[in-house]
Amino acid sequence: MENAIFTANNVWMMLCTGLVFFMHLGFSFLEIGLTRQKNTVNILFKNVFIITVGLLLYYIGGFNLMYPGFEDGDSGFFKFAGFGIAAPDGGMTPAYADGGYTWWTDFLFQGMFAATAATIVSGAVAERVKLPSFFIFTIIYVGLVYPIVGSWKWGGGFLDSLTIGEASGFYDFAGSTLVHSVGGWAAIIAVALLGPRIGKYSEDGSVRAIPGHSLPFTTAGVLILWLGWFGFNGGSVLSADPELTSLTLVTTSLAAAAGGVSAFLVSYFKFKNFDLTMFLNGILGGLVSITAGADQMSPNDAVIIGLIGGAIIVFAVSLLDKLKLDDPVGAIAVHLIAGIWGTLAVGLFGALASADQFLVQLVSVGIVGAFCVISAFIILLILKVTMGIRVSKEEELEGLDIHEHGMDAYPDFRMKQQ
Amino acid sequence: MENAIFTANNVWMMLCTGLVFFMHLGFSFLEIGLTRQKNTVNILFKNVFIITVGLLLYYIGGFNLMYPGFEDGDSGFFKFAGFGIAAPDGGMTPAYADGGYTWWTDFLFQGMFAATAATIVSGAVAERVKLPSFFIFTIIYVGLVYPIVGSWKWGGGFLDSLTIGEASGFYDFAGSTLVHSVGGWAAIIAVALLGPRIGKYSEDGSVRAIPGHSLPFTTAGVLILWLGWFGFNGGSVLSADPELTSLTLVTTSLAAAAGGVSAFLVSYFKFKNFDLTMFLNGILGGLVSITAGADQMSPNDAVIIGLIGGAIIVFAVSLLDKLKLDDPVGAIAVHLIAGIWGTLAVGLFGALASADQFLVQLVSVGIVGAFCVISAFIILLILKVTMGIRVSKEEELEGLDIHEHGMDAYPDFRMKQQ
Amino acid sequence: MENAIFTANNVWMMLCTGLVFFMHLGFSFLEIGLTRQKNTVNILFKNVFIITVGLLLYYIGGFNLMYPGFEDGDSGFFKFAGFGIAAPDGGMTPAYADGGYTWWTDFLFQGMFAATAATIVSGAVAERVKLPSFFIFTIIYVGLVYPIVGSWKWGGGFLDSLTIGEASGFYDFAGSTLVHSVGGWAAIIAVALLGPRIGKYSEDGSVRAIPGHSLPFTTAGVLILWLGWFGFNGGSVLSADPELTSLTLVTTSLAAAAGGVSAFLVSYFKFKNFDLTMFLNGILGGLVSITAGADQMSPNDAVIIGLIGGAIIVFAVSLLDKLKLDDPVGAIAVHLIAGIWGTLAVGLFGALASADQFLVQLVSVGIVGAFCVISAFIILLILKVTMGIRVSKEEELEGLDIHEHGMDAYPDFRMKQQ
Repeated sequence: MENAIFTANNVWMMLCTGLVFFMHLGFSFLEIGLTRQKNTVNILFKNVFIITVGLLLYYIGGFNLMYPGFEDGDSGFFKFAGFGIAAPDGGMTPAYADGGYTWWTDFLFQGMFAATAATIVSGAVAERVKLPSFFIFTIIYVGLVYPIVGSWKWGGGFLDSLTIGEASGFYDFAGSTLVHSVGGWAAIIAVALLGPRIGKYSEDGSVRAIPGHSLPFTTAGVLILWLGWFGFNGGSVLSADPELTSLTLVTTSLAAAAGGVSAFLVSYFKFKNFDLTMFLNGILGGLVSITAGADQMSPNDAVIIGLIGGAIIVFAVSLLDKLKLDDPVGAIAVHLIAGIWGTLAVGLFGALASADQFLVQLVSVGIVGAFCVISAFIILLILKVTMGIRVSKEEELEGLDIHEHGMDAYPDFRMKQQ
Repeated sequence: MENAIFTANNVWMMLCTGLVFFMHLGFSFLEIGLTRQKNTVNILFKNVFIITVGLLLYYIGGFNLMYPGFEDGDSGFFKFAGFGIAAPDGGMTPAYADGGYTWWTDFLFQGMFAATAATIVSGAVAERVKLPSFFIFTIIYVGLVYPIVGSWKWGGGFLDSLTIGEASGFYDFAGSTLVHSVGGWAAIIAVALLGPRIGKYSEDGSVRAIPGHSLPFTTAGVLILWLGWFGFNGGSVLSADPELTSLTLVTTSLAAAAGGVSAFLVSYFKFKNFDLTMFLNGILGGLVSITAGADQMSPNDAVIIGLIGGAIIVFAVSLLDKLKLDDPVGAIAVHLIAGIWGTLAVGLFGALASADQFLVQLVSVGIVGAFCVISAFIILLILKVTMGIRVSKEEELEGLDIHEHGMDAYPDFRMKQQ
Repeated sequence: MENAIFTANNVWMMLCTGLVFFMHLGFSFLEIGLTRQKNTVNILFKNVFIITVGLLLYYIGGFNLMYPGFEDGDSGFFKFAGFGIAAPDGGMTPAYADGGYTWWTDFLFQGMFAATAATIVSGAVAERVKLPSFFIFTIIYVGLVYPIVGSWKWGGGFLDSLTIGEASGFYDFAGSTLVHSVGGWAAIIAVALLGPRIGKYSEDGSVRAIPGHSLPFTTAGVLILWLGWFGFNGGSVLSADPELTSLTLVTTSLAAAAGGVSAFLVSYFKFKNFDLTMFLNGILGGLVSITAGADQMSPNDAVIIGLIGGAIIVFAVSLLDKLKLDDPVGAIAVHLIAGIWGTLAVGLFGALASADQFLVQLVSVGIVGAFCVISAFIILLILKVTMGIRVSKEEELEGLDIHEHGMDAYPDFRMKQQ
């Protein structure tokens, strides 16, 4: 491979790595904005934990677990002996031509991805989860479950070669299933085991909206996530190939725009007001929907996938409330439901569309779903039975910030006399 | 064109596209910071509407309207039949050598630009405009007026070849006129037709300052916009040409710094205090001023243009208040007045400076201004007469958030006992 | 040098320049979040002053002072005659092969760095420093002290060639000493001369925590700084060399993660709660620690350096309080103490580790420290004796925002009825 192309590829991948890292600020803003002030420090703490511990875990074991065979003949399960990843011979140089960029960039880009799955769960369990239990869950889920599932496809495992008829393997470009649904499945199990927040559902069946504390932060979070998706999807090309990267950015942005507009319109006709949070969640729905096939779709396909992805969000949020699954930030609707839709859409639209491909996508969604549901259920049930996963009623009412952190998010915020 | 250069160009243009997208968060923060809390959700909703709908409109018709001749022989007015842009043969590959980067990147970069014009108007009409009327205005202005004006210069139209004496055409590198003044002209017309906010100007001629609700958001908005301008101006080179891109970043940043310092000093000597909002608007004034000639100026030229651009802001804000044109965020001063100054400065400083060029710049400012003023006036007058453009007095006093969105921007923000 | 590589290098360096610029938003958020609301506008004003005036000063004189010999044979001290930097012949073209990117990019990248030193001081002196005195200090420190110290190493001066035994010169990759400690030394002198905030230390020896006003801003600030460090360290490679840039991002991010986790755990065992601000300052401690040797360390080295760097923060914060050095944002712990640790670590870990190198690092830390301490002391003492450096007691109690700026940071922030 030519040296200058290798350099340009690597620059692009480093930029994308930075953008995916930046998504963690987006998730933080989104989540604190949609939840009550009394739990803000707790959510921020969780998110900072996820990115720092997630990265270290991925370094210690996840990367080698997810991409077996890359690490110099060693089977690499955890590699505790050698502590941390090792570069293959010449791994940092253009000789590592397979990915078209350096081994180090590869690790860091994938590491930023890994932490995302736990972040999705974080939003759904907000305002009532016990912090140490969440830490343990995160360590196991990011350290083991995520890289195992990832290895099935991105590590060249059995989903990658799953053949049905003409279709030659499961396709999930940047992770509608492998990242978003992996997080989403754990979120739905966690929410079911945790139960709703106090006061969310009353016995007469009515649902109480529990508004968050800052829509500016929520909006900033979604715009930062959209920008981050330039790296999430654009970097998943794994090179700076001009045709694929720029097409990917176009499909990603059009699906985001279409998802937002669709959710805005559907919610306007359903509820007769201009609902900013639906608009914003629709954008995220569009982004998650396009993620599985962002490099396979025409711009027109992307608009249609986004329109459906955004509309789905509005209905999914209502449906989850009917099922009394209390998800404060809409994470299950956005990451699980739109993630499934996006994965299936690869069989319906774009270059790979075929009945066989649709079947492969459906089967893969099912296999990944079953594994994640079972894993999350086992981990969380053990935690529930042993140390408990939910804070006390008193703590939930008074707020997690004071109880677990001894501080308030805005300790010196004062109103002037009015 | 060499493949590696093409790849590097495309990486740069994708980065710049992301930065211009990020400006929409900058504008959102700037606007909500300078306006009252009761209208925050409304402003955020408008800004999210602009970027999503703006991008879809540019996809459906704007791009082909602005750059005729690129779309495969089709005259392309709206192209509804085919729905959406089509790539020229080989448009995604290095064969599309004309721009030095892919067709898809070209569309997305220009699409992010297009939405900016409406955002400028959004700030000026904040706190009293009727949402559905603003939506219709945005659709027409971003979908039609902006690309028509853009085509006159960037699409190779008559301003591009406007010849006076030695000067060989209107020059507007990244859009002091074509983006900022296009937005600014509509803003001044809208403000005139809407009238000032209740309580802004009393009958005895005194002006009441109506402070916003968060200077941290305002400051963050301006710093994000400065960063975004790296892409706005840097990407307008339309390649990663090292000499031009890096010179452009230097002139852009020096003008921003000079504009800020100038506004800070002028306002200090005028009002005897350290006025943060003037400092910040001075930075924006410097940025808008350098935009027309960022690639034609020496660093020294950039400092001078910025110094004047920043000082202009302070005087323009006062002047507009004397004219009872109530612009809550200073958008007219920043985008229209500094935009005109920057456009004229191309005839006074830098590589193109000449009396003839100055005349071309002046004539072009006039032509664009006339077209925008007339267009904006017709659209807004029709809206005013039919559905109305201003909310009711009751709604304005109680806030648009509760009335149009049924929510508060900070619904769960509580003070601890003090 | 090949043209395409030069272009890719320049794209990378422009990206890094943007990221370092973005750090100024990170610093602003960090500082206002950790301080009281009544001084928010004051801190934002200082930060905007630093980036604008800092950039202009670096343009007028700093760049030529720091990198003598680059400026066309002129000795270049201030160069007021010619006003501003001049490019060497062919400086903007690939002929400027020495750095592998353009002269303009070089200036802008270094200029964004220069402002950082003053920003560090800004945090430490917050809530009580007199604004005009701080302006004068900033002008002298950024305009003279910083570039003089920088020239000793990065300008090819005597520290660059300081030889002890086998070690062939002081090594400070991206400025643990040359940027962070330079700021940190001035911070400690300023804090000592200013004295603590009213109410911080009572006569019985007890320390009162003075909490800030927004942990969301603080968290956002740290995540933005981490992202900015991709440019701070990644750009210090001074090319897009794939091996070095990507290794640098890996060591930087691992040290950040390790520093955070270390501070979180140490403070948990010390104080028995989950302290978000310690977690965040630990991340910064890790980042500052790795900065001196980010391109010389293996990932394992980076983790260890970060773990120690994070732990140091927890102890340093306590120690400074015992010494009654009141640093509202922890700037001295993060930038000075971790900066010294990171500089020494180059002699202990990685490719350069040796007893001789350790000695060179130690001596250089001492020389730089002595020069900065003396310079800062002289400047600040003169200011203290002449115009004073501290606001009046009344102003400190009522807040600097109202007194110096005539405004409140959140003038229209209202609580809804509860």
